[in-house]
Amino acid sequence: MKIAVVAPSNTLKREAADRVEAITAARGDCELFIHPQCFLSEGHFAGNDGERLSALREVMADPSVDAVWFARGGYGSNRIAEAAAAGLPGAARSKVFMGYSDTGFLLAAFHKAGLKVAHGPMPQDVVRDGGEAAVNRALDWLIGRDPASLDPQLEQPAMAFNLTVLSTLLGTPLEPDFDGVELLIEEIGEHHYRIDRLMFHVTSSPNIRKVARIRLGRASDIPENDPEFGSDEQAIVADWCGRAGIELGRPADIGHDSGNKVVPFARFPE
Amino acid sequence: MKIAVVAPSNTLKREAADRVEAITAARGDCELFIHPQCFLSEGHFAGNDGERLSALREVMADPSVDAVWFARGGYGSNRIAEAAAAGLPGAARSKVFMGYSDTGFLLAAFHKAGLKVAHGPMPQDVVRDGGEAAVNRALDWLIGRDPASLDPQLEQPAMAFNLTVLSTLLGTPLEPDFDGVELLIEEIGEHHYRIDRLMFHVTSSPNIRKVARIRLGRASDIPENDPEFGSDEQAIVADWCGRAGIELGRPADIGHDSGNKVVPFARFPE
Repeated sequence: MKIAVVAPSNTLKREAADRVEAITAARGDCELFIHPQCFLSEGHFAGNDGERLSALREVMADPSVDAVWFARGGYGSNRIAEAAAAGLPGAARSKVFMGYSDTGFLLAAFHKAGLKVAHGPMPQDVVRDGGEAAVNRALDWLIGRDPASLDPQLEQPAMAFNLTVLSTLLGTPLEPDFDGVELLIEEIGEHHYRIDRLMFHVTSSPNIRKVARIRLGRASDIPENDPEFGSDEQAIVADWCGRAGIELGRPADIGHDSGNKVVPFARFPE
Repeated sequence: MKIAVVAPSNTLKREAADRVEAITAARGDCELFIHPQCFLSEGHFAGNDGERLSALREVMADPSVDAVWFARGGYGSNRIAEAAAAGLPGAARSKVFMGYSDTGFLLAAFHKAGLKVAHGPMPQDVVRDGGEAAVNRALDWLIGRDPASLDPQLEQPAMAFNLTVLSTLLGTPLEPDFDGVELLIEEIGEHHYRIDRLMFHVTSSPNIRKVARIRLGRASDIPENDPEFGSDEQAIVADWCGRAGIELGRPADIGHDSGNKVVPFARFPE
């Protein structure tokens, strides 16, 4: 089992890479290849668009690689997602791709292109409190498809996205078909009024209105609204689901934290 | 000439209302009616959705009102825009509606419904440095259609939007037809990486790709990007216009400031 790590958004911290390498060495059940592109830095990004795309396409085309694990989020995978999903090498079809947050743009594009993707913890998560558990949860699923890594309430087919990422991929070539899908969403660092605006946008989409249901994960680090918004994220999501005639499902066990569970987009077991 | 002020988003400051009333009294060329709804407060908003919608519909249906002037932005007009534009009273068609920022949701919905709208300064702007000039510019256009109030480079038909508002109205029932339109955009308080993400979203839209050109106004109060993003808002907009095959026009004289010029959506003179 060979897992390749590339960074389509921001630069991976060396400390995080070292700690994840120590975890995989101790497990002894996989070979981890952290692509040197992960440590590049150009402005906001882990290298320029060409460098990030090239590293991603390299591991996608490598038949020895079983899984491609996105190093971290931040911002930038949207800038290369359409090109990354075009003219796919045959070897890409035998792999699974995992990430979340900003790398949701790639999950969407790759899922739409027929590849196997999953929303789940990334190497950079190791630096969080309890981050080793998150990394091991991701590895347990990548290596052994461990059902204990999944949201226990998951009904498939499912998809999971950061809410801002979801809003900004609608109407782009990356937008997948949401028909009948259980849609899990999570957010970080957005004011309640922004969550409300994003929910207005997302639930107004005719494509999103075809989902089986929406389930809200954790919305963390919400800045203070001035004045107080008047309702919390659960009420906001319930309000917009109600207006749009979308079923609101149970809370989802995903978020920008070490408890973040794995959500495979395809039915599981495959 | 009677101008009615309502607040479809946030509460109007009493100080701003007093100062605008003093300006119109000194001008003596219009009657200003500041609807009491402007001073309501419920959570984030100038009253709940029903109260904001009701005040707006009341002045839309009033045949004695010649212009409806949105008091200020903030957040919330999207929550009532679809209902506000449905089943229009005949009296709405003889009026012009003006605002910008969050009230862009209403500009879009009303323009799509065939009403006359313009992007321009609002009463709350009076509290800005130089805000009296902004208010008088808006009044000069509302009362006399003064061409000096307009962006001097404007080529019509045109539309103008806050970039975040534009992004979150795409794909909703509020989205107008952008075919052949000169599209002016402006932004406030968003990081460069967010402006980049918004431009990715907006320029990926097939509808937006039909514009005659995009012109960037001012992007103000941009928080520091950590790390430095690597390009500024002009370069970001040029990059995404280039990728999308959209012509980039000259800088636009609009923004969240007292220099904000008027942009009528219909051809001018009407």
